[in-house]
Amino acid sequence: MKVSLHGRTRHFRTVTFDGPRNAVLLIEQRLLPHQFKIVAASDFRQTARAIQDMVVRGAGAIGATAAYGLAQGARAFRGRDLGKFQRQVETDFQTLKAARPTAIDPVNAMIQVRQAMEAGETVEDQQALGLAAAEEFANEDVRHCEALGKHGAKLIRRGMNVLTHCNAGWLAFVDVGSATAPLYAAQARGIKFHVYCDETRPRSQGATLTAWELAQQGISHQIIADNAAGHLMQRGKIDLVIVGSDRTLGRTGEVTNKIGTYTKAVLARLHEIPFYVAIPLSSIDWNLKSGMDIPIEERHASEVLGAWGTLESPKARGRGRQRTRRAYVRVANPTSEALNPGFDVTPAELITGIITPVGIFRPGELWARRRELGWAAG
Amino acid sequence: MKVSLHGRTRHFRTVTFDGPRNAVLLIEQRLLPHQFKIVAASDFRQTARAIQDMVVRGAGAIGATAAYGLAQGARAFRGRDLGKFQRQVETDFQTLKAARPTAIDPVNAMIQVRQAMEAGETVEDQQALGLAAAEEFANEDVRHCEALGKHGAKLIRRGMNVLTHCNAGWLAFVDVGSATAPLYAAQARGIKFHVYCDETRPRSQGATLTAWELAQQGISHQIIADNAAGHLMQRGKIDLVIVGSDRTLGRTGEVTNKIGTYTKAVLARLHEIPFYVAIPLSSIDWNLKSGMDIPIEERHASEVLGAWGTLESPKARGRGRQRTRRAYVRVANPTSEALNPGFDVTPAELITGIITPVGIFRPGELWARRRELGWAAG
Repeated sequence: MKVSLHGRTRHFRTVTFDGPRNAVLLIEQRLLPHQFKIVAASDFRQTARAIQDMVVRGAGAIGATAAYGLAQGARAFRGRDLGKFQRQVETDFQTLKAARPTAIDPVNAMIQVRQAMEAGETVEDQQALGLAAAEEFANEDVRHCEALGKHGAKLIRRGMNVLTHCNAGWLAFVDVGSATAPLYAAQARGIKFHVYCDETRPRSQGATLTAWELAQQGISHQIIADNAAGHLMQRGKIDLVIVGSDRTLGRTGEVTNKIGTYTKAVLARLHEIPFYVAIPLSSIDWNLKSGMDIPIEERHASEVLGAWGTLESPKARGRGRQRTRRAYVRVANPTSEALNPGFDVTPAELITGIITPVGIFRPGELWARRRELGWAAG
Repeated sequence: MKVSLHGRTRHFRTVTFDGPRNAVLLIEQRLLPHQFKIVAASDFRQTARAIQDMVVRGAGAIGATAAYGLAQGARAFRGRDLGKFQRQVETDFQTLKAARPTAIDPVNAMIQVRQAMEAGETVEDQQALGLAAAEEFANEDVRHCEALGKHGAKLIRRGMNVLTHCNAGWLAFVDVGSATAPLYAAQARGIKFHVYCDETRPRSQGATLTAWELAQQGISHQIIADNAAGHLMQRGKIDLVIVGSDRTLGRTGEVTNKIGTYTKAVLARLHEIPFYVAIPLSSIDWNLKSGMDIPIEERHASEVLGAWGTLESPKARGRGRQRTRRAYVRVANPTSEALNPGFDVTPAELITGIITPVGIFRPGELWARRRELGWAAG
């Protein structure tokens, strides 16, 4: 999507691959919205760490990053021993998978890369096929998001107030995004609307990333505390909710997404506000039989106990670069601990529809439509 | 309640009055939990500003502060002209009232002080009666909180997990607190339980004040993001919710409290978890006929766009006082704005019971029990 840099507008993808340097290039998302910077992960371990440390985050983006990471690891192999090569690929696969245990996209993406590689007869062939498959995964991610946006844009009418949670924007994908795709598509059609961005504590991706994206694209928006959505719904100020998903169960229609999503779905149901989940096909899990089986990542307490931002010191005001000094402040009582579940599970009955690249479905329909939705490919 | 300072335990009230200096003494709550400090407001304007700037906050505490502030303003009057004196008292009343327009306690407290003053025949008499009435208001606040705690403690059984929102602790009253009173009373009876403190964005009073209070009293607790309560309820990890209230409508049982309270009530109802509101009698509004008529304070966007805390710089680590440097970090995208409603209204049907100093009532019962609940005094 477009980014304004030093007065010029350029187009970027979240994840790209630099072949000659065998490096994965990533937008350093932890610096956003205060600084825009591209970083290079020059081996697959750095790529795995970038996923783990959330340099890159979001379903599609970490899928493509893992796909590139597996191809990158394979390309770093020296020698012709196919058995050794495949064992290394398998180790790399496990390392990249372990970087974010709740997510399904990296696994699905890497399976595609590994399957493509199997057609090659030499190490070199397999290396080339792996990279081509990773590139194809990234390109397909973009096409899927664009298709999803086209379907979802039909839900957005002039003057609507739309609530979003966390960031399932283009920064969470290779481009365009899932939950934001309908917004961008509606904007492209000339429809005017307003977005409330849940700040999405504890990591505040709504206040930082989604708000930054919407500001870059010129979409009217305001950030709200996560606590405020219920009040706004009660006062009739929210017409539609669109969120993303890290993992959607194809068998049950249950949705795993950033902590707080479930709460918004409960509120939306009570107030009879349509609640939609926008997903790429790659985030559908066709195996799990219950949302209660999804492992919920417990993240570090420091995320809840404080906040990252830029320090506003009176001295620094107006001096340009110096204003962007990043700092962590401890907000909470120093002698208290925190509990920090990273995700929650929203049951199918609270979801109005699932927006996918091939159309909008009721959550209970996914299994019946599984062939259309890419199940056969899994 | 007790506070550990330099290894010694002392007892404090949130608000006291220094007669010789004609000053209102307040715990500077914006420094907590990182620093414990008593500040003196040496005229009624400073007292009004302390209420407005949230040096002191919470229903009972601002009630007592306004009561002392009115007495303080009256005591500063020089001369014997009773008409002039009463006009000044009236002006002071309006100034103190305007400091926090959503709250009812300052108004009720000041009405008590003004009524007591009317019995005096001279300026001097009225000044003395005003201060005595303010002192009585503060003492009654403590007695009420203690009685409330006794009733509420019956709800807490061994091993329970209790959710709280914001701070309706002793820092929000003169002492003991409302939502925390049952916790302190249960602890005094030797009952062991665990508390989840909603951090309560955007001002984080749960993470700072409630967590600090519970730590000082040695009660087991963890801070959670406001987004996490729904997930914990879904997984059966919350047995009881107790919150406070800034204003409860005696006619309808509707409750105004910190933004996010309504959301927790909706979640509790869905999960069949008892949801109690603990209130002093002074916070009951017997006049308003609908919660929709309560003015909802829109607070400054900067609260949502960033966070206050202590800066943890590697240099400062281990150096004692230097670690407590307070700083504001801008978390959100610099080019985005925020919407910041400070309170919300929870309808009676979501509330299991209202814990008061005279017993626990269903919200619909308040009007029928109004004489017991202090209506005649209003």
